[in-house]
Amino acid sequence: MANPTAAMLVIGDEILSGRTRDSNMHFLAGELTKHGIDLKEVRVVSDDAPAIETAVKALSQAYYTVFTSGGIGPTHDDITADCIARAFSRPIDVREDARALLQAHYDKSGLELNHARLRMARIPDGATLIDNPVSTAPGFTIENVHVMAGVPSVFQAMVASVLPGLTGGNPLLSQTLRVNRGEGDIAATLAALAENFQDLSIGCYPFQVNGVFGANVVVRGTNGAQIDAAITRLAKELDL
Amino acid sequence: MANPTAAMLVIGDEILSGRTRDSNMHFLAGELTKHGIDLKEVRVVSDDAPAIETAVKALSQAYYTVFTSGGIGPTHDDITADCIARAFSRPIDVREDARALLQAHYDKSGLELNHARLRMARIPDGATLIDNPVSTAPGFTIENVHVMAGVPSVFQAMVASVLPGLTGGNPLLSQTLRVNRGEGDIAATLAALAENFQDLSIGCYPFQVNGVFGANVVVRGTNGAQIDAAITRLAKELDL
Repeated sequence: MANPTAAMLVIGDEILSGRTRDSNMHFLAGELTKHGIDLKEVRVVSDDAPAIETAVKALSQAYYTVFTSGGIGPTHDDITADCIARAFSRPIDVREDARALLQAHYDKSGLELNHARLRMARIPDGATLIDNPVSTAPGFTIENVHVMAGVPSVFQAMVASVLPGLTGGNPLLSQTLRVNRGEGDIAATLAALAENFQDLSIGCYPFQVNGVFGANVVVRGTNGAQIDAAITRLAKELDL
Repeated sequence: MANPTAAMLVIGDEILSGRTRDSNMHFLAGELTKHGIDLKEVRVVSDDAPAIETAVKALSQAYYTVFTSGGIGPTHDDITADCIARAFSRPIDVREDARALLQAHYDKSGLELNHARLRMARIPDGATLIDNPVSTAPGFTIENVHVMAGVPSVFQAMVASVLPGLTGGNPLLSQTLRVNRGEGDIAATLAALAENFQDLSIGCYPFQVNGVFGANVVVRGTNGAQIDAAITRLAKELDL
């Protein structure tokens, strides 16, 4: 059976302007792979309401599950929660359980739960909260969309909260064979191998180190014995 | 006048499986910002023909210019050129000028221009070649789409070839004010500032260092004097 599919929506001007280098995509990709969920598409959009709404609707319809990162803090540019509510035509307001979490957190740190911070308790109707052990302000899940923070430590903690509850498939396994020849020299062999192992994905990633050309051949799939067989055959055909 | 808009399409299973961390998006974002082109959207898709075709059509229609990275090498998983040709309903075949470039390159290095390597000379009808000073195999431009390699050194060289030929706008300028208070404390001030400087984008990016919470406030826009005025006013209002 095919693995469940996923998409990610990264939200933030700071990524698209080049100020910040996103790291959440790479982290999520690795976690989903281990969990047997196939990340099929990622989109990055700016802090722009129509762009966020259009993207979340398209991805929610096309994939089994969707993860968003960014735009759920207390400032005026944090518009994600409201955009998600509109995308699903749900009312949104401060929710009591989320407010209580924030109140306890700020009481403990001696800070005021002011109007801005209270925005982080705005949750669309019918959503489930996502635990945030790092800085308390929760994410939320609505339909098949998990709405999470952009700060990497918080994003990672939220992924850890969400992932065990999702139906996974077979973890994607891989083996890599390093070949000290140009990829043009081994391309015909790889094409024949791909033809013979149609359940596996065979990728070829060239490198150049100290003037020497080579390629890492990565064989991916969910059946470890098949991957072994493909790698063994490839090594033999390339006289390695 | 508003700056021209751009989108990027990153192509490759290795990004979505978490094997490789993409760096081309961050590089391109920075270059476009300097050139006065607004990067509005990025999509990442796998080495899957329908996914590539659908994405390139959508982005080509929605934005002034589109950059792709990945999938133009010699191996069976390099399907980008053929997908782009199909997206624009153009025939594609080995083109003589591209073949001549590769022939000269491989003659010099004593390697054979075999069937696999010749695939890198497949160019859709009507496209313009993009120079590749790193490893010769060219990219190409068709309509408003620039098709480039995924290997970062080659991608960067191709961006350098393409960018001077594109109409730029006003470079996006920015100034950052570091504030040693939680973003919830300064949110109301920032919202008022954003209200007063509607041509500027005002972002707030929280950090936590050694248990101290703070935020970097980034003011972005194309008018340097306006940015100065906003930063000065913010510093005054926050007693900095």
